[in-house]
Amino acid sequence: MAHWKIVLEYDGTDFSGWQLQPNGRTVQQELERSLQQITGSAVRVAGGGRTDAGVHARGQVATFSCEKALTPEELRRALNGVLPEDVVVHEATLIDDRFHARFSAVARNYEYTIAVGPTAIDRRTAWSCPYRLDADVLRRCADRVLGEHDFLSFAKVGSDVEHGRCIVTRSVWVMTDRRWVYQVRSNRFLYGMVRALVGTMVDMARGYRQEADWDAMMASNDRRKAGTAAPACGLCLVSIEY
Amino acid sequence: MAHWKIVLEYDGTDFSGWQLQPNGRTVQQELERSLQQITGSAVRVAGGGRTDAGVHARGQVATFSCEKALTPEELRRALNGVLPEDVVVHEATLIDDRFHARFSAVARNYEYTIAVGPTAIDRRTAWSCPYRLDADVLRRCADRVLGEHDFLSFAKVGSDVEHGRCIVTRSVWVMTDRRWVYQVRSNRFLYGMVRALVGTMVDMARGYRQEADWDAMMASNDRRKAGTAAPACGLCLVSIEY
Repeated sequence: MAHWKIVLEYDGTDFSGWQLQPNGRTVQQELERSLQQITGSAVRVAGGGRTDAGVHARGQVATFSCEKALTPEELRRALNGVLPEDVVVHEATLIDDRFHARFSAVARNYEYTIAVGPTAIDRRTAWSCPYRLDADVLRRCADRVLGEHDFLSFAKVGSDVEHGRCIVTRSVWVMTDRRWVYQVRSNRFLYGMVRALVGTMVDMARGYRQEADWDAMMASNDRRKAGTAAPACGLCLVSIEY
Repeated sequence: MAHWKIVLEYDGTDFSGWQLQPNGRTVQQELERSLQQITGSAVRVAGGGRTDAGVHARGQVATFSCEKALTPEELRRALNGVLPEDVVVHEATLIDDRFHARFSAVARNYEYTIAVGPTAIDRRTAWSCPYRLDADVLRRCADRVLGEHDFLSFAKVGSDVEHGRCIVTRSVWVMTDRRWVYQVRSNRFLYGMVRALVGTMVDMARGYRQEADWDAMMASNDRRKAGTAAPACGLCLVSIEY
């Protein structure tokens, strides 16, 4: 059995997220269907980062084992030939079979894009945030995220995790005239964490909540204390590091 | 009568171009329909740059006159409230009635985006060019475009123009790992010119045609001598200068 690592890009708009579901079109499903078509046998795929419905990826990673003898370039081309137009494979590599897309990861990078003002061209990949935001507040909030903290207050209710501690090694807003992009890197992310962080930062930057509440909110470990999740369309899984 | 200038962005994917047509959804049609809905009377709109089916705009300009008394901010909001999600208005300004979106323009800026490798997220706004391209050839071709030339060889057959002379004041490829973007500025553009220029540059950069043919091709004034037009999806009207 050959063990493979592939790097994927997808437009999450028309997907019910990464993970297989009884109902709803998912990226994992399209990928497993394509691999079955190419190899002739059922293939189970592991994803490096679970993305929600509507969330995009430029650097999702998947691992799987299959029988068929193909070179990496042949597999990449074969997949791009059968995958739908909203998923593409950028790289395929043969890899040690102890390597696992999810468990071998040491860090993940996400970006959240806010469009300044309305947008037509980027309406699928940016949140056209209707509020006037204070850039300095966003920057100070991002600084508070940096470092090792318990992020349970930002984890979707019902997410089943042992603990909420994450080590955030990048947390910064990169701002141009048209786009404000939040870049965040962490050893792990809780379910729904980036969207909850952005939603909370936006609540503070538009003056709806006080910045001074941040520490108490973090300490509460209560998702209801943080802000509404920012819309899925603005979020993108940029890369996974191993 | 109040005379207005508005700046528009649109995702051209689902439009049969800017200009009114007997059949097919166009941006002008959506804009005139929206203005009629707001003002209660028929409004005829002039566009600053005619864009083809599938071509996008971040800075299209339109001018029109109408009766209804609104402030610029009220008109902008009213339009964004009734326009479909693939068109937005960024600015609305009251302007002298001698100002015309098309005839007052002194320069236009276009960008053509090539995705390096396949792409899912940007498949509507970039040409995922299947060839391996020589960056140096593209750069040298762009240099040849710069200056005052007769561009009839790059004008769509059947386009009815008095002459083909354009003064190109910017013609450059801006290249990153993922995207190669051709930026071009000219006092005027012939119909289909940017896509024909990009298609011809790509033919040369992939080794399908000789760079040495450029001058003879320009001098021929024969559209059949230039390359196939690059796909519409990669093209964007960035701004119009007055």
